Amino acid sequence: MRFEVLCRDPQTMARVGKLATPHGEVLTPTFLPVGTRGAVKSMAPWEVAGIGYRMILANTYHLYLRPGVEVIREAGGLHAFMGWEGPILTDSGGFQVFSLSPTFRVEEDGVRFRSVYDGSEHFLTPEAAVRVQEDLGSDVAMTLDHCVAYPATREEVEKSVETTLRWAERSLRARAREEQALFGIVQGGAYPDLRARSAELTAGLDFPGYGIGGLSVGEPREDMLRCLEVQSAILPEDRPRHLLGIGDPEGILESVALGMDLFDCVLPTRMARTGVAFTREGKLNLRHARYAEDLRPLEEGCPCPACRNFTRAYLRHLHRVNEMLAHRMLTWHNLTFMHRLLLDCRRAIEAGRMLELIREWRGWSSRHPS
Amino acid sequence: MRFEVLCRDPQTMARVGKLATPHGEVLTPTFLPVGTRGAVKSMAPWEVAGIGYRMILANTYHLYLRPGVEVIREAGGLHAFMGWEGPILTDSGGFQVFSLSPTFRVEEDGVRFRSVYDGSEHFLTPEAAVRVQEDLGSDVAMTLDHCVAYPATREEVEKSVETTLRWAERSLRARAREEQALFGIVQGGAYPDLRARSAELTAGLDFPGYGIGGLSVGEPREDMLRCLEVQSAILPEDRPRHLLGIGDPEGILESVALGMDLFDCVLPTRMARTGVAFTREGKLNLRHARYAEDLRPLEEGCPCPACRNFTRAYLRHLHRVNEMLAHRMLTWHNLTFMHRLLLDCRRAIEAGRMLELIREWRGWSSRHPS
Repeated sequence: MRFEVLCRDPQTMARVGKLATPHGEVLTPTFLPVGTRGAVKSMAPWEVAGIGYRMILANTYHLYLRPGVEVIREAGGLHAFMGWEGPILTDSGGFQVFSLSPTFRVEEDGVRFRSVYDGSEHFLTPEAAVRVQEDLGSDVAMTLDHCVAYPATREEVEKSVETTLRWAERSLRARAREEQALFGIVQGGAYPDLRARSAELTAGLDFPGYGIGGLSVGEPREDMLRCLEVQSAILPEDRPRHLLGIGDPEGILESVALGMDLFDCVLPTRMARTGVAFTREGKLNLRHARYAEDLRPLEEGCPCPACRNFTRAYLRHLHRVNEMLAHRMLTWHNLTFMHRLLLDCRRAIEAGRMLELIREWRGWSSRHPS
Repeated sequence: MRFEVLCRDPQTMARVGKLATPHGEVLTPTFLPVGTRGAVKSMAPWEVAGIGYRMILANTYHLYLRPGVEVIREAGGLHAFMGWEGPILTDSGGFQVFSLSPTFRVEEDGVRFRSVYDGSEHFLTPEAAVRVQEDLGSDVAMTLDHCVAYPATREEVEKSVETTLRWAERSLRARAREEQALFGIVQGGAYPDLRARSAELTAGLDFPGYGIGGLSVGEPREDMLRCLEVQSAILPEDRPRHLLGIGDPEGILESVALGMDLFDCVLPTRMARTGVAFTREGKLNLRHARYAEDLRPLEEGCPCPACRNFTRAYLRHLHRVNEMLAHRMLTWHNLTFMHRLLLDCRRAIEAGRMLELIREWRGWSSRHPS
């Protein structure tokens, strides 16, 4: 993997970069659609690529439990298994262990947990997380980290930072697959000084890229941005930074301005399934009766098939009667929206007007189209 | 609407026909995918058309209750509302009243029922069924009929035949829209003589086409075929006949040989959502563990996207974890299968080998691919 910064915004830490992987190049900042269980929900891989996406994220936790790594390895790896030809980033599984598993226990060696599917017991070590991701054959893998809930005491966060660091060292030693880049994860809760410490120590291990975890888990937005800023200043400038799990437009733009390059989040696809379309005018909630006879597209000028073919009235009807086509079309639309947002973002950086773009989008999340 | 018989199989009653509607021509025998609530489940209209389908069926019952006829009329009719450019056939709503509604009561004037959605009370008359379908703007509409459950006493069936006939007469008088063809429905339960009587009396009303209802509701297959045969011999040869609700390959082929032209059924799409793929080798049930590492496509040689892009192992995984993409891909496959089956059927009629085709498919429903 190679990463090259192509251009910087003069007023912020935002940069346009190019990430080269064994499965092709990606321009950053970019948003990665989440293929949770080996599919971006409701979308065929050629449809995701058709929007313009080059890279996706897949969840190690889910694939490890279902269908299991053996099946995917036998199929020739995750790319072949799911029919995705571009780069794939896999997370370590840690976050899902902490957020989804019915029970888990962090031990020095790793984390013991029960499967969300059938309650079976599993033990995930840093070494196992590396091995599983190598078997999956992703282009970018992540080290197993210890993510604490918010709020957490200083002592809890300190401990999680130390554990995450030890696991990062062990992950590096466990690596066997040259062509896969392993990103180190930094933690630190909502404590800026612990964030700084985690970034310094992890950067000392010289990873080819870094993931920033444990943010947007309940802390105030200003605290999140402060933590990001601290870590961004410490992490090496010539390495890509992936902000894990942030997907709201304002949050993405503000994080880009703080030097973040990669994003992933289920928000745009999950909101789609609840009947919410992201538009430049704000969030359009199709459940509102006002759209019952609205013959306009979700968003004027949007090139997605939902907007080119259907009215709000029709999509609202489909959503109300729970037709899959509604989920598909809103997912397609929201992923198109995110792709266009990141495209605008790269253009703004190139034009030196990132701050202006952030101003234009300020307040978006509380706006709604007419 | 015009219907023309282009060619007949010399050994059976099978024929190839051409149905010309305001929204284009369709070759028969043909299978109509069911767009229950204004969408063929999981499929975009251009995807359905891409398989090769020209005509679909939509359920008046569902559209009348959700989103309501007013919304669809305001949108410019059902074609514009759902984005389907080809012909649409609508049923009368009667069958769903009898099969879905929590309660219903047949009165002389029509049927009183409660909505499956919210329990609200509605009264559907033959005139209302015509008016609703005219508002929907379908190319072919159906008269409201009285469908009895199986088994039913001779008296019950006699009564339903009489009611259906009176409603058919009233439907004809209620028509206001020239360009929409109204098909009369024949009934008669599993009693061949009542089937004959219903066909004679309804044919006497000179409909441009006929729907055969109330079959495949539990009666033995031979009884169904006997009833079909009786009615097919009576209904005018120059009018299209729609066999309502039959979708198994063997049943379709045998019915084509008895002179049926149009078919519709949710079976192929419903089975898809349970993980069952129709293949020429039989039914492939993806829930079986034997497919867990099977890297073959669902069906060798099938041109659908599921078969061109994915393995059985991958689709099985998606189905197991309930990913929408599984439902989509299996639906797409099964509709492709049905389209190819009916294409084979038309070719067999043209080649005078319909009986041979039926023999080739005999026993299909109990076969499974390796």
